[in-house]
Amino acid sequence: MNKTYQQYAKKELKTELESLRKKYKSYQNRALQLNMSRGKPCPEQLNLSMDMMSVLSRGDDLHCEDGTDCRNYGVLGGIEEAKELLGAMIEVPADNILIFGNSSLNIMYDSISRSMTHGVMGNIPWSKLDCVKFLCPVPGYDRHFAITEYFGIQMVNVPLNEDGPDMDMVEHLVSTDPDVKGIWCVPKYSNPTGITYSEETVQRFARLKPAARDFRIYWDNAYSVQHLYEDKQDYLIEILGECKRAGNPDLVYKFTSTSKISFPGSGIAAIAASLNNLQDIRKQMAVQTIGHDKVNQLRHVRFFKDLDGITQHMKKHMEILRPKFELVESIFEEDLAGLGAGTWTKPRGGYFISFDAVPGCARNIVSRCKKAGVDLTPAGATYPYGNDPNDSNIRIAPSYPSMHDLETAARILTLSVRIETIKSILQPMI
Amino acid sequence: MNKTYQQYAKKELKTELESLRKKYKSYQNRALQLNMSRGKPCPEQLNLSMDMMSVLSRGDDLHCEDGTDCRNYGVLGGIEEAKELLGAMIEVPADNILIFGNSSLNIMYDSISRSMTHGVMGNIPWSKLDCVKFLCPVPGYDRHFAITEYFGIQMVNVPLNEDGPDMDMVEHLVSTDPDVKGIWCVPKYSNPTGITYSEETVQRFARLKPAARDFRIYWDNAYSVQHLYEDKQDYLIEILGECKRAGNPDLVYKFTSTSKISFPGSGIAAIAASLNNLQDIRKQMAVQTIGHDKVNQLRHVRFFKDLDGITQHMKKHMEILRPKFELVESIFEEDLAGLGAGTWTKPRGGYFISFDAVPGCARNIVSRCKKAGVDLTPAGATYPYGNDPNDSNIRIAPSYPSMHDLETAARILTLSVRIETIKSILQPMI
Repeated sequence: MNKTYQQYAKKELKTELESLRKKYKSYQNRALQLNMSRGKPCPEQLNLSMDMMSVLSRGDDLHCEDGTDCRNYGVLGGIEEAKELLGAMIEVPADNILIFGNSSLNIMYDSISRSMTHGVMGNIPWSKLDCVKFLCPVPGYDRHFAITEYFGIQMVNVPLNEDGPDMDMVEHLVSTDPDVKGIWCVPKYSNPTGITYSEETVQRFARLKPAARDFRIYWDNAYSVQHLYEDKQDYLIEILGECKRAGNPDLVYKFTSTSKISFPGSGIAAIAASLNNLQDIRKQMAVQTIGHDKVNQLRHVRFFKDLDGITQHMKKHMEILRPKFELVESIFEEDLAGLGAGTWTKPRGGYFISFDAVPGCARNIVSRCKKAGVDLTPAGATYPYGNDPNDSNIRIAPSYPSMHDLETAARILTLSVRIETIKSILQPMI
Repeated sequence: MNKTYQQYAKKELKTELESLRKKYKSYQNRALQLNMSRGKPCPEQLNLSMDMMSVLSRGDDLHCEDGTDCRNYGVLGGIEEAKELLGAMIEVPADNILIFGNSSLNIMYDSISRSMTHGVMGNIPWSKLDCVKFLCPVPGYDRHFAITEYFGIQMVNVPLNEDGPDMDMVEHLVSTDPDVKGIWCVPKYSNPTGITYSEETVQRFARLKPAARDFRIYWDNAYSVQHLYEDKQDYLIEILGECKRAGNPDLVYKFTSTSKISFPGSGIAAIAASLNNLQDIRKQMAVQTIGHDKVNQLRHVRFFKDLDGITQHMKKHMEILRPKFELVESIFEEDLAGLGAGTWTKPRGGYFISFDAVPGCARNIVSRCKKAGVDLTPAGATYPYGNDPNDSNIRIAPSYPSMHDLETAARILTLSVRIETIKSILQPMI
């Protein structure tokens, strides 16, 4: 076992720093441009869906089974076949689904926006309230936090553990504070830590007794089928059914999309919820649009056919993604293990590796990477208001770069981690 | 020249009514199901764009000219090529355009919703104001009115004349009442009357001096290329440039889409506005979505290629639509001319014929048509709150039915018009 940097003598640290800086300099001289900042599929993954471009062609009949002409106006909540396909994927009946456009983020935005201007199922619009709060398990997804921040909703950090958010804290806040109107959740292969909520966590969610009648769980099922290992898959129990059984049928909005399955910008997205909630949402939808893109819904249905089609397709994604995750993990292991320079997750799915640096180092590491041509998600981004109180968490997205670029980027990252860790230890010594 | 019904003796009217009722009964016995309610393209029109289904195929390169992979995340405001195509169509520079999803109605909804929650270019959010008003030229588009009603915005009727809204009234209200934050306009081949705003009207719009700094003209250019006659096309001057020249660059939001060009539910939609406005809108967009469907944008660009491609395509729509409009107009002429039973428009473009019945008859006519199996837009729909003060206007959409069905539907309509007109004359006599 190595000594950790914390156990090094000052002189040893300085020698080590000198040597690391030389290596860093040589990378810097290469004027690289590498990007591990966003959970973006790589071109090889996009190629997996190229047959979708030919699944509808000029001679085809674009009618649904029920006779709907997908090319024309109409069908507010999406075609039946698409509801069934996504329903099967997220384990809810087709009747509990509304299909939207290409972006589940947009559905989440619309849900919050509607709650602000019109309230939730007859409750007072949030814009009329002095204070609205959302619980934010941290680290979490920056785009969730951006929506609540945009609407002036006060965000309250809740620690995210290995089995989900700290449920004692969630239960306490939700049941005692009527200002708490929602909680952001990425329950499976969470962004960025990769954890999946345990059965007990989901059951405690379903049994929440909110002080606010218009409290909703924002359950973002973005990575429900995004596994990295055939034989080591996480299992998440289905929240909608669990809420119903717990006598809380209206408690949850569940979001999904095919962004990580077909094409990120050209997939289909959906919300699943109780019939009461869907009726409430439909009132807005009916004013907002005549209907979303049914041709693209049909294209997805004819390409994937059924859940098995999706499952088979996701294995191909898995084969492309897994080596990238394993490469980064092995470089971390090789360059950082035992040094006391940080810890990292080894997810079984999703799009991210979450790295926790020595407190106070994350911003410097990200900035040092950038100076050597490696873009990472900004430090702090995984916390509300971009404020990581420990300045420790860094989200790493290994999906997009090629294996070759990824190796270089990961090496620059570990180098930057080691340099900044040593500097942080030396700092108080000076 | 016939006598008008108003000039008939009571006995003559009763005989006429008797005979019309017999004809009506015979239609009723046929248990028809015909629909002239919505501006919906017919299957033959949709077939015109079927090649679009094959314009992208599995072997194609889906990159833009600037190297963007259209299949992946990114490019918030739309691909450059799509901005140029729609820009050419609505006569604004590509830089003044943002491309959204499939629905311009959705962009309008989002614009109002954003103004409610965040205000317009730094002004106070409308949700914080006691009163917000929109001017509504009438008759107008029911879905516009539905948006403003949904947000509790007070709608003020303004008469729509042959050359556009009553501009004396518009100028007076906009310049004196700071609660007036917007006006709904369909400036070309207006829905439902088919009129196009005159050069003077547009210039007066561009020269408005609003009492409210956050007043915007909502310029819905839905039918800009929807002409019915090659040799009789309306000409609308371009409002964005006109506003700029008038020193009011931020005064207008201009909306367009390809809903009536390619596929109604699967087209692309856009907003055009000043750079200041677009910057304001982008702030919302950046929170709302990672980007809209770029593959569909590329599909449209590769299919239409350029403005000339759109122009050629619209001639094919014209050839399908014109006979339908002419059929309805000829039946109106044949069955109603000289009877004093109503007046109707003979539009040169757009999707509607606007029929003005004898005051007090519209609801009864629509309901009588329905009982004989002909669905029309509900009477009143062309007015805010569904309230036509004269109960006179009926919007007729001839695009969807086949020529055969259209003839039957139009005959049932004229029959219903004549019956209800006679009844309304007989009523006070009893």
